[in-house]
Formats: sequence, structure tokens, C-alpha cells
Amino acid sequence: MTFDINLVPDGGMSWLDASGPDGNIVLSTRVRLARNLDDQPFTVRSGSEDNQVVLDQVERASRASRQLHDAPLIRIDHLQANERQLLHERHLISRELAELGDDGKVRTAAALLTDGSVGMMVNEEDHVRLQCLKSGFSLEEAYSDLERLDADMGAQLAFAFHEEFGYLTSCPTNAGTGLRASVLIHLPGLVLTKEIAKVLQGLSQVGLTFRGLYGEGSEVVGNFFQLSNQTTLGKSEGELLEHLGDMVRKVIEYEQQARHVLQRDAPTVIADKVWRAYGLLKYARSLSFEETMNLLSGVRLGVGLNLISDISVYTLNKLLIFAQPAHLAMSEGRELGDSELAVVRAAYTRQLLEEEATR
Amino acid sequence: MTFDINLVPDGGMSWLDASGPDGNIVLSTRVRLARNLDDQPFTVRSGSEDNQVVLDQVERASRASRQLHDAPLIRIDHLQANERQLLHERHLISRELAELGDDGKVRTAAALLTDGSVGMMVNEEDHVRLQCLKSGFSLEEAYSDLERLDADMGAQLAFAFHEEFGYLTSCPTNAGTGLRASVLIHLPGLVLTKEIAKVLQGLSQVGLTFRGLYGEGSEVVGNFFQLSNQTTLGKSEGELLEHLGDMVRKVIEYEQQARHVLQRDAPTVIADKVWRAYGLLKYARSLSFEETMNLLSGVRLGVGLNLISDISVYTLNKLLIFAQPAHLAMSEGRELGDSELAVVRAAYTRQLLEEEATR
Repeated sequence: MTFDINLVPDGGMSWLDASGPDGNIVLSTRVRLARNLDDQPFTVRSGSEDNQVVLDQVERASRASRQLHDAPLIRIDHLQANERQLLHERHLISRELAELGDDGKVRTAAALLTDGSVGMMVNEEDHVRLQCLKSGFSLEEAYSDLERLDADMGAQLAFAFHEEFGYLTSCPTNAGTGLRASVLIHLPGLVLTKEIAKVLQGLSQVGLTFRGLYGEGSEVVGNFFQLSNQTTLGKSEGELLEHLGDMVRKVIEYEQQARHVLQRDAPTVIADKVWRAYGLLKYARSLSFEETMNLLSGVRLGVGLNLISDISVYTLNKLLIFAQPAHLAMSEGRELGDSELAVVRAAYTRQLLEEEATR
Repeated sequence: MTFDINLVPDGGMSWLDASGPDGNIVLSTRVRLARNLDDQPFTVRSGSEDNQVVLDQVERASRASRQLHDAPLIRIDHLQANERQLLHERHLISRELAELGDDGKVRTAAALLTDGSVGMMVNEEDHVRLQCLKSGFSLEEAYSDLERLDADMGAQLAFAFHEEFGYLTSCPTNAGTGLRASVLIHLPGLVLTKEIAKVLQGLSQVGLTFRGLYGEGSEVVGNFFQLSNQTTLGKSEGELLEHLGDMVRKVIEYEQQARHVLQRDAPTVIADKVWRAYGLLKYARSLSFEETMNLLSGVRLGVGLNLISDISVYTLNKLLIFAQPAHLAMSEGRELGDSELAVVRAAYTRQLLEEEATR
């Protein structure tokens, strides 16, 4: 390890505490803004000197901002693969940065992190990615934090901006506002009632899209969906957020209705399902990541339906993060093969559930 | 209920206590002798008056025997279907008697039961079926009890006997000694190592046969096999028992070897398997009989391998019996549909495991 994750306040995980609105169904809200310096080439076309210039300028501006003035700056290109992976598993850096250099092409890139609610990536796909991660369903709160940071940065830096198109970005799908907002939402009720396909189709018709736990290209596991805006152009930030917010509120309602129907029409099936998940999490000696996510989904549903009371949503959130490969490797202090990982994951899960039970 | 199962000492279940030899692998040993009165038609050809005559004679003889002189006599034809089923689930009467009258043909039939180690059925396929059920691997002990009863009965009754063939029976496959000895054995190791087919084939080549938990026609569930002699004719009782005993001893050895191999080569897989079974038994809210047997099999293996220590073999044996439909209906005091049965079974199982954990 060349850096200590504990240097980041709260390990960047304040959002795990499940304190936010609708924290039982919506795990977290993430908003990010893509920005580029107008006098530097985009990262896809830049050389290492350009990258360094961008980093220097952005760092200087950060130090003058209210939110990032003393945030630790982590040089992603100085990290080992498992360290990058660890940050990615905490949702603090993107997959692109987590895999930086894996293709042999190294790039000067960095992340500035706070307790997790506000952060920044430098020289990701865009020069600057401002981001904010909040517990629960907190679109407005997240955006207001981010707006403040954007204003502070914009006061220091000249961002690439076009009168007609708005902010210019490396990939045209981000141009305009540069805003992508997403909520990580747990929809087991809609999956069990088989209504999920209809709901997702409906979302895509109104300009929203869905992904798995880890953003673009990641598969849906454990009934955890990331719902986000598809469009970034032609609408104001406020309109985009309001639209996403309205739709997510509807999805939460549908999910609650689905859970109600399940409990009304198939209470035994549901109770059996959630308690079996709990029993397996508590006793299995080998757990794949995917199975763990599915079992966590079952237990989370049980907690949401007040069937299971001896485990907190915080612990379930914690398991989502700490049951991942890089986190398990960190806790063991060494690299782990796949079958070892499954054993260590099961042991960690058991331990956490036992601690919870004796609390 | 027209009769009280508690009239039978120990409820006929002294064999459940797992106190017998190799009680961890061999649940029970059963020996029975088929006998017929030589002056009465076999039950397949008899009328109700004949049946009554047989019952009267046999009862009188029983009262003069050392083992059954005060055993309660239960008129099977006076029982309701669920009561007959209850006795069958306890291995006290055969499936034939459990289903008596279901085809509309009622027959005067009875069972004389003690604490389970010795008993008798009257007017089953044969006039008299003497039987003995012991905990663990106890062929000699079971037969010696039975031999004593046979002698006492034979002193009072003239049994159909042919100089050349031996005892005559309703079905020729029982003629000769009229002896069928079986052990109920748990072979998860041989099933998991996939050696079971070879072992069973070997047994059939030396005149032995296998069945499921409930004798003839019953399927194997939970890796519980009944191994018994196929041949009853042309050999003495002692030879038949010695042969079965030798073969069962070999099967026990193979099973132990298989368990050793599994623990040596796949300890995590085995630990995972047995603890998952425990977790599901402990937390499921709905359990089919077949799944319960499979989970009990897993837990039993875990106990045998000293992986699980917080549950006794006695409790596992008890679950085998009390998780069955007629037992669950008795404990609820009413008839249960299939889905209700699964819920009640899961609740009963949880309760028993919780009692065990707090002991």
C-alpha cells in the first residue's frame, strides 16, 4: 500500500449510514459535473505534460475552494491496482480511473476526496469531474453542495463553454450541463412481482437510464439499480434534477406498492425468502460476490418489511462495500484468489452479523 | 383421534435416542419375522370372520408371551387415516396397514406395541409379523429379542411350516425364515463422492437390496438408505444376519473413508454445505418434507464430522419423525394442507433447534 485510505475522512463513506431520506429503498444519491479547462486538450488527446498542467491548475483552484481546500489529493497513477480498486469499490473513483494504466498507458490523474459527500477526479475522461455522494434520496442536497464547489472552481478556472451547447465535454453525451445524477435504488419488490421490466422501459421512454451497482457497463446484482438521467443537453440542471426526482419518487411508490402486494398475497413466500437469505448469510462458509449481493437483497427486503429486526440497514450497506474483493484483500493484508475470496467473504459476513446480533 | 399414541411406552420411539452402536451413521436396525397360522387362510384369501379368529388366537398367545403380555393392542381398522399414518411415520406399522381400508376393503387388523423395540402386526400381509426396532447398528440384539418373542408365540400357536421350505408366507419372497432384517443408514459421504451407485450395485450382487426411509416402494431422500436381505430362503437366520452384518460393516467403512476423503480434499465445500443446511433449517419459514430430509442429511454429516456441535443426533432423529405430515397435524391438532404443512414444519424445526441451542 502506498497510501492510507484512512487519510480520507470517514474513509469516504459517510453516505453508508443510511440516514438519508428513503434510506431503506434508496441507498445513495450521486451527482457529478463534467468540466474541462478551455485552454488544454481533452484527456483523450493530451500528453503527459498537458495532464500535469491540468492537475497543477486544478489543484491550485481546489485549494482556493471552500470544500476541497484541505482535501487529501491522491495520485491515482501512483497507486497499485488493488488500491485503485478499493477506491472504486467505495464509489469514490470511476471504473476508468480504477483501471488506469492497466492498458499500459499511464496518465497523470488524481482524486481529491472528503468524507465522501464531495470529491473530485482530475484527468478522468474529462479534466475535472466534480462529484457528490449522499446517503438516501437526496438529489437537491447533493446538487447544492456540488453547485457551490462548481462555483468556487469556476471562479478560479476558465472552463470550456459554448454559448449554444453549454459545457463542452470529452464525450458529447455529457455536453451541456455536464450533469449526471443517479440514485442507487433497491427494487426487490418490483423484481419479485415481475413488474421491473415495465418500469425500466417506462424510465427509458422519459430519458432516464439504468445501470448496475458500479455504473456504466456493470451488471445488476442483488436487485440494486442505478437510475440516472440520459440527457444532459438542452435542459437546465434544475429541470434535469426535477425530472429525475419525480421519476424516482414514482419508482419508490411502485416499489412500495409491490412490497405491499407481496406481503398481502404471499406473506409466507416472502418471509421464507428473506429469512433463508439471512440464514445463508449467517452460516455459509463460502460466498461469491453475486450470491452475497442477492442474499443482502433478501435481508434488506426483510428489514424493510419489518420482518427482520436484528440487523441494521447500516450493516447491510457496509457489507455491500466491504464484501468486495479489494476490501477483503485489505482486511486480510494480502491478495486473495477467487476461492479464498469466497471463504474470507463468508467469514467477514458472519463476523459482522454476529457482532450485530450481540450488540 | 380415537386412540392416544402416548399409551404406547415412549411413544414407540426408544430407538430414536441414538444410543446404539454406530448411531451416527446407522439410525436404526429392524428385524421382522413373518408367520402364519397353519389352520387359517392367508389374509389375501381370508374373510372378516377368519381375520377375527386369527386376531383372537394371536392376542391370546401374545398375552402369554414375556414381551407382549401387557402391550396395548391397537385395532388398526378402528383408526382414522391420520392415526394409521402416525404409526407408520414412527416405523411401528407397515405402509400396508397404514393404508388399510383406503381401497374400501376393511380387514380386522391390529398392532401390539411396546416401547418400540418389540412389536407385532396382526393380519398384515401375513397373519403375524413380529418385529424389533433398535437404535443404531444392532442386528444381533434385535434378533435375539425377536427370537425370544417368536419362541413364546410358537409355543402357543401352530405356525404354517413346511419341512423343506420352512415357514410359509403369503408372498413367496418371504418364505423360509420369514426374516427380513434392515438397517437405516445415512450415506452422504458415498453420495457426495459419487461412489454410492457402485456400492449399491455391489450389495445387490451379494443378495442385499436397498430402499428409502419407509421401506418398499419408498424413495431415497436425504441420503437415508434401508439396506436389507433380499433372500429369506435356503439359509439360516444366523447366516442371513451375519451376511447382512458383514456387508453393512463394509458399507460403514466405505462411508467413513468417503467422509475422510471429503474432509481432506474439499474441507471448505463440506463445511459450507453442512452449515448452509443448518442455516436454512434454522431460518426457513417453509420447508417441504424432502428438503427437510436433505437439510437434516447435511447437518447430520456436519455433526458426524465434528463441524457442528450445537445439535445432538437425538434431535436430528426426532426431526426425521416429527417433521412428517401426521406428526405435524397431531401437534397442531388439525389436518393441514400442503402449504400449511410446510409452514408448520419450518416452525417446528426452528423451535426444536432453538430449544437445543439454549440448552
